[in-house]
Order: sequence, then C-alpha cells, then structure tokens
Amino acid sequence: MEQTLNTSKNIGIVGLGLIGGSLGLDLQNLGYKVYGVTHRLKTVQRAKERGLAQIISTNPKILSQCSIVILALPLKELLNPDPKLISELPVNAVITDVGSVKSPVLKLWKDLHPHFVASHPMAGTNKEGVEAGTNNLFKGKAWISTPDSTTNLEALETIKQLAISLGSNWITAKPTIHDEAVALISHLPVLISAALLKTIESEQDQSVLTLAKALASSGFADTTRIGAGNPQLGTSMMENNTSAILHFLLAYKDSLKQLEEKIISHDWKRFKEDLEKTKIIRPEFLNE
Amino acid sequence: MEQTLNTSKNIGIVGLGLIGGSLGLDLQNLGYKVYGVTHRLKTVQRAKERGLAQIISTNPKILSQCSIVILALPLKELLNPDPKLISELPVNAVITDVGSVKSPVLKLWKDLHPHFVASHPMAGTNKEGVEAGTNNLFKGKAWISTPDSTTNLEALETIKQLAISLGSNWITAKPTIHDEAVALISHLPVLISAALLKTIESEQDQSVLTLAKALASSGFADTTRIGAGNPQLGTSMMENNTSAILHFLLAYKDSLKQLEEKIISHDWKRFKEDLEKTKIIRPEFLNE
Repeated sequence: MEQTLNTSKNIGIVGLGLIGGSLGLDLQNLGYKVYGVTHRLKTVQRAKERGLAQIISTNPKILSQCSIVILALPLKELLNPDPKLISELPVNAVITDVGSVKSPVLKLWKDLHPHFVASHPMAGTNKEGVEAGTNNLFKGKAWISTPDSTTNLEALETIKQLAISLGSNWITAKPTIHDEAVALISHLPVLISAALLKTIESEQDQSVLTLAKALASSGFADTTRIGAGNPQLGTSMMENNTSAILHFLLAYKDSLKQLEEKIISHDWKRFKEDLEKTKIIRPEFLNE
Repeated sequence: MEQTLNTSKNIGIVGLGLIGGSLGLDLQNLGYKVYGVTHRLKTVQRAKERGLAQIISTNPKILSQCSIVILALPLKELLNPDPKLISELPVNAVITDVGSVKSPVLKLWKDLHPHFVASHPMAGTNKEGVEAGTNNLFKGKAWISTPDSTTNLEALETIKQLAISLGSNWITAKPTIHDEAVALISHLPVLISAALLKTIESEQDQSVLTLAKALASSGFADTTRIGAGNPQLGTSMMENNTSAILHFLLAYKDSLKQLEEKIISHDWKRFKEDLEKTKIIRPEFLNE
C-alpha cells in the first residue's frame, strides 16, 4: 500500500556540522520547525546556544513527526548508518542526504527507506563542526539530485522545492555520471595537488628547499591549496569514488606523459600548441 | 687592464614590457636618466607616450653613456642575443638580466661581457607588453642573483644596491640551486596543472563534461590557473630549464604512484597519513 507523505513544516536534520548547521539556520528562517540530531551531548549544548535548530537531541526518536529528514552526515557514517537511526526514520517522511558521492549512497539507501532521494548541495567552506554553520550557504549554488528508476517522484519533487526555497539551482543527473564528473573536477585535482606537496616533502637538498621557500608565490599557493585540505575528507573522496578516480588518474598520467615526451624530444612547437589548448578549455569550466 | 666602472646615473633598459617598463618608471622616480631600447618603432612611440624612459630608440647606440644596462628581454631573445646589441653594450657598464632561468643565461653572458651579473626580480602580473609596466612592481619582492666565481664583485654590489633601492629583498644563490628551486615551485606546477586541463580536454563523454562544467568551483579554478597561462612563457620555462624540470617530474610521478597504490590497495589509513603530511608542509612555503 502506498504511504501518504507527511506534509508538515517539521524538518529533521541529522548532523549539525557545516551543512547541517547551515540548513538548520536557513530552514528556521523559512518558517520550518527544525529537529536536530547530533552524536555527542557536548554538541547538543553548543548547537542549542548557536540556535541551529529548535529541538536538539542525541536521540533520533525526535524525528517521528518530521515530513523531511536530511542526513547531513559524513560519507563514512552515511554508508555505515546507525541501526537505531534507520529504525527511527518515519516511513511517511522524505529522506535525503548531502554526500558528495552518489552511487554508493543511492545503492544502500534505496533499500533502507521507500522515499529516499539521493542529493547534495555544492556548497562548502574551510570550516567544519558545530561552529561552522552559517546563513545563506546554499544561495546561488548547485544542488544535485541523482534519482534512478526506483526514486519516488513525489519525494523527488519535495526535495527539489526545498532546494529551490534555499536559493539553490536544481540539477539532476545519473548517479554514475555525477560521480565521474566530480572525480574529474574535484577528486582528481585533490590527488594531483597532494602529489605535488608529496614531491616537495621527498626533496632532500636543503639548499633547494630553503630557496624554494623564499621564492614560492601565488602559482604555488593556488596549485597546492586543495592538496592540503581536510585529510579525512580527501581520504573519504578516494574511498567512496575509487573507480571513477582511478579511471581519470589513468587518463591524467597519459596526459602528463604526452607533455613529458614533448619536453624530452624538445618538440617546443607542439608543447606550445598543448598550452594554447589548455588556455582555451579552462574558461569553459568557470562561471567566474 | 681592469676597466674602471662608469658610475653615472644613466641606466639603459633593453625591452620595455612588464619588467622593463616597470623598471623605467621606478628608476626615473629614483632620479636616474633612463634610456630605453625596444625592437619595434611602434613600441617606441607608445613607450614615449607612457613615459617609460626619457630617451627611447630602436638603436642600442643610445646605451653608450649608461653605467648599468638591464636586459629585460624574454629568455629566448636573451639566449639568442642580437649581435648589434652585444657590440653596443659599453664595456665599463654593469649588465644584468631578468630571465627566470639562470644557468644557461650565466653560461652564455659571462663570456659576452666582463661585468655581467645574472639576476632577476620575482615579480609578475598577468599583463605583458608595452602597456604592462607599472609603478612599485618590485617593492617587497625577492630579487635573486646567481653569481659564480667569474662574477665581478663590484658589478654584483652595483646590482644589489639597485635592487634594494627599488624595494626588493636581495637573495643570492648558486645558479643550479636557483634553477632547481624554481623548477620545483614554479615550473613543475605549470606542467601538472596543464596536464589536468589536458585530461579534461581528452574526455569524450559529453554528459560528464556538461555536468562537470556546471559543478566546477574554486578547487578546480585554483588547480588549473597556472596551467592556462601564457603558452609562450610556459614553453620557454620548459625549454630553458629542461633537466631540472624532468628531474622533478620523475619525482612527481613517483609521488603520484605512491598515492595511487594506496588507493588501489584500499590502504585508507596510510593514504590519510599522506594527506596529513601534505597539509603540514604547505604553510612552510607560504608567506601569506
């Protein structure tokens, strides 16, 4: 029997870090009653002080009257969910997540809840934890959903309207296409940037390193920024999007080899042609 | 017989692009009479309008009374100098350059002039050409010199005082150490950033590319910035610092392979340890 969806203005958020906390602030401003669930008692206290939700508890039982529950959890917890959390998710609510890799999330969760919608906002800052939540984080940012043939269309529409009400631009894509796209423009860049820093770490000549430290400027700063980000987040990307990342890493190594061959053979004409092409392609990916 | 150095306040600048033009503006403010030599008649006219020097000509004969001549030429021209330019450089002047690779420059020029000092300011913008010169470009920036045992110490001191008067921080280093340091923190980053853009260019799946364009954000922008710079400049780096770049490219490929092996073997503990190290090493190279 098809379950009628709850349409109350009660929203649950599981996890009150950067994304969850920011959602809590914005959704209260939109007139929702927000129920926040966090793992630790200490976080409950601080989240209350910051006003991230009206009702905050470590017990997922408080989600029973919610029409929507947003699982704002790290990928690791999302993919290894607490059985108690699963059992407390109301069956007539719509459930969504904010995980940056979609295929494994959808694969697991579509069997755990009948109204699960795989989605995530493309929003972030360098901050994390209960202090990180901020107003208007999602305005003007993309919010991606990756439905498959099993996704309930009414539930999908509910999350779409929620994202739009937060000011986000709604995009839908196939889960595999999504995971390949983020591997290419987000996860692979983390890897190649980290490898550059690892190369520097392996350099033994102190006189080279000392001078390099004196001379490093904006080009170095830009190229190494995301390779020096949150180690847990970077590892989680690789762990949960392994095959797409390895696929593009292979393509990357081939690109590097083609450039290297032109350097070795002193084929400066064709090397320059490559740089003319890279100069043209970059602006197509930037909406700056 | 040792030639007594000219100590007049006449300075010659060969090339009035970003570096040469900026030097012309600052040196006039410091009370020097500046003689500018450019290649094309059209540039002479525009450089006069912009006031980049007091005397401007395509004929290097105007350098005859100068105590210092700065060769503000691209590496390609610096390493293939016009014989007429060489013959007009006054023997009692101090000559320096602004080339970003030092070993090949010093090797060639130490036999072309008795008072040649290999040096260059670490200053740049995205602009180039006669319109690019700007005031105070060198203030607070490093100015590197790479003397060897043949370098005239009085000439070296002359360029040191010039750099300091422009507000730069004077650094000396061995030519090979310099070229390795810039290969590591400037030239290798260009290469790995260009390879990322080349990987994207080689992607065939249009649905992945379309979504990637919608999702690309600041991490992608940062990592690809210097791989999409001036193709001539990028090629010139590779052409003139080939062996140091190939050396570090080998080390880079090894770093990438070590990360890849941890991904393939799902060794997330050690992968995360690597990211913890890269996070620590980056700030040591930034004076931001």
